[in-house]
Amino acid sequence: VVGLEAVLPTGEIIQCGGKIVKNATGYNLINLLIGSEGTLAVITLAILRLLPLPLQKVSLLILYKNIESAIATVQEIITHKILPSAIELMEEEAIRVAEEYIGRKLLFSNHNYTCSLLIEIDGNRKDEVERDYEELGKIALKKGAIDVFVAEDKFQQQRLWESRRAISEALKSKGEVDHEDIVVPRSKIPDLLLKVKEIEKKYKIKIACYGHVGDGNIHVNILRENRSKSEWKNIIPLLVRELFECTLSLGGTISGEHGIGLAKKPYLRMAISDQQVELMRQIKKVFDPNNILNPGKIF
Amino acid sequence: VVGLEAVLPTGEIIQCGGKIVKNATGYNLINLLIGSEGTLAVITLAILRLLPLPLQKVSLLILYKNIESAIATVQEIITHKILPSAIELMEEEAIRVAEEYIGRKLLFSNHNYTCSLLIEIDGNRKDEVERDYEELGKIALKKGAIDVFVAEDKFQQQRLWESRRAISEALKSKGEVDHEDIVVPRSKIPDLLLKVKEIEKKYKIKIACYGHVGDGNIHVNILRENRSKSEWKNIIPLLVRELFECTLSLGGTISGEHGIGLAKKPYLRMAISDQQVELMRQIKKVFDPNNILNPGKIF
Repeated sequence: VVGLEAVLPTGEIIQCGGKIVKNATGYNLINLLIGSEGTLAVITLAILRLLPLPLQKVSLLILYKNIESAIATVQEIITHKILPSAIELMEEEAIRVAEEYIGRKLLFSNHNYTCSLLIEIDGNRKDEVERDYEELGKIALKKGAIDVFVAEDKFQQQRLWESRRAISEALKSKGEVDHEDIVVPRSKIPDLLLKVKEIEKKYKIKIACYGHVGDGNIHVNILRENRSKSEWKNIIPLLVRELFECTLSLGGTISGEHGIGLAKKPYLRMAISDQQVELMRQIKKVFDPNNILNPGKIF
Repeated sequence: VVGLEAVLPTGEIIQCGGKIVKNATGYNLINLLIGSEGTLAVITLAILRLLPLPLQKVSLLILYKNIESAIATVQEIITHKILPSAIELMEEEAIRVAEEYIGRKLLFSNHNYTCSLLIEIDGNRKDEVERDYEELGKIALKKGAIDVFVAEDKFQQQRLWESRRAISEALKSKGEVDHEDIVVPRSKIPDLLLKVKEIEKKYKIKIACYGHVGDGNIHVNILRENRSKSEWKNIIPLLVRELFECTLSLGGTISGEHGIGLAKKPYLRMAISDQQVELMRQIKKVFDPNNILNPGKIF
């Protein structure tokens, strides 16, 4: 985002940045407004810097017997200077629910896998993209993958990504879900997922993980299933606090994409010091002295 | 920059972000602190997200009889989906001064050029980079370049970039220079340079332009030469105001890289509305209630 127009709660309109690549004229308010969850101003115009669409795209679906092999593959990809445009992790539980929801299998074959990586590689040249995915496939098999499926045409790619995209809706259709959006340094993903397994056992609850593992950003979905509402309400705060404590101890934070809002507000001070929250509250006051924009959100 | 540690003027230490790719936990203070010119906090640690170094690099020096052909080349490169890592413009005047300063010619040959582009292309594969620079060379010649020099080895590349990097120091060695750091949308570069030529004539003063034309960021150097100090002091504010008015009317801004500091402070409100400056002043107060960090800078 290189430019914004925004209306302040006091009624004034401000212009930040513009159709320019660089800007060192005063404080950068653009990134302060982005992700402020509607608490500072109403954004009425955004200028984005676009990159040309890549001419070539290939998706790979890689199946694993255990999550450790999947994570080892991700580590190796990153150290190997291959830069996929997406590396998505999907656990068996998440895939199963998505398959049921869209009414067809992710794959025709019947492999016995517990987790998968969905990887997208793009570029402008076919041979370049091919070399990348061949190298990537070799890495995956070396790290213990059961099988690697390459989706070169648009139809196959759409099928794979449809499944990935259906997961969130599919999980919601199964009943109440507590959705966490934690992020850790990429190298800490194995530790985090180990902790999730531990929590799953400890609280005797089903957890489905999926998400942008290439970014260290995992969506952890805790399924209520047959638990009573009151039991659920007691468990979740304890469970989430334990999950966040682990996330933070690994150098991560409690929201990668979705923000704090009301749902994560009780946990904000686990991630951010009181002084920093106080700075944010004061900044809020500067923009919105009458506290009329999304009052009570974030902090 | 994905993480910062900073000491507030009140003595508290804050941690923003971390070794994580994504973060939506509270307001983004990282980009507020970056470019705040030391007025908000003292940054004591920065965590950077690195990209692997490209394995292949090629530099091209392209010579032109007129600046219009150089600009037409830049436009064509951008619409052609070639993404060089650098596109630098050097006007004859800037090159001449740099050659004198480092004591050797930019080129052995004696072309009659008035401006040049120095372009760097990088990538991981030799054939890929070669195809890019061949395409780029064709574009340049089609747009009226006199000649295209390709520097494939490190020694040749160093020679070219040494000249580019010497310009700023070289200009300073020639006497007083007023250095402007304006930025405009890339498509407006020709209009901006036309205006600079007009100003050069109007004020009967020598102006040497160079800079990151691929970013729309031009360093405009106004040379004092034989003007008296008092005459210079009268001319510069008028000239700079005229240059900035043009820059802003083209949708640009008054600093792309170097910031406002004291030198550009009188012009800040040409670029940013009073309300926005007031927001910035209030943010400054939140961080630095006693006004002890770089007081008087920016606004």
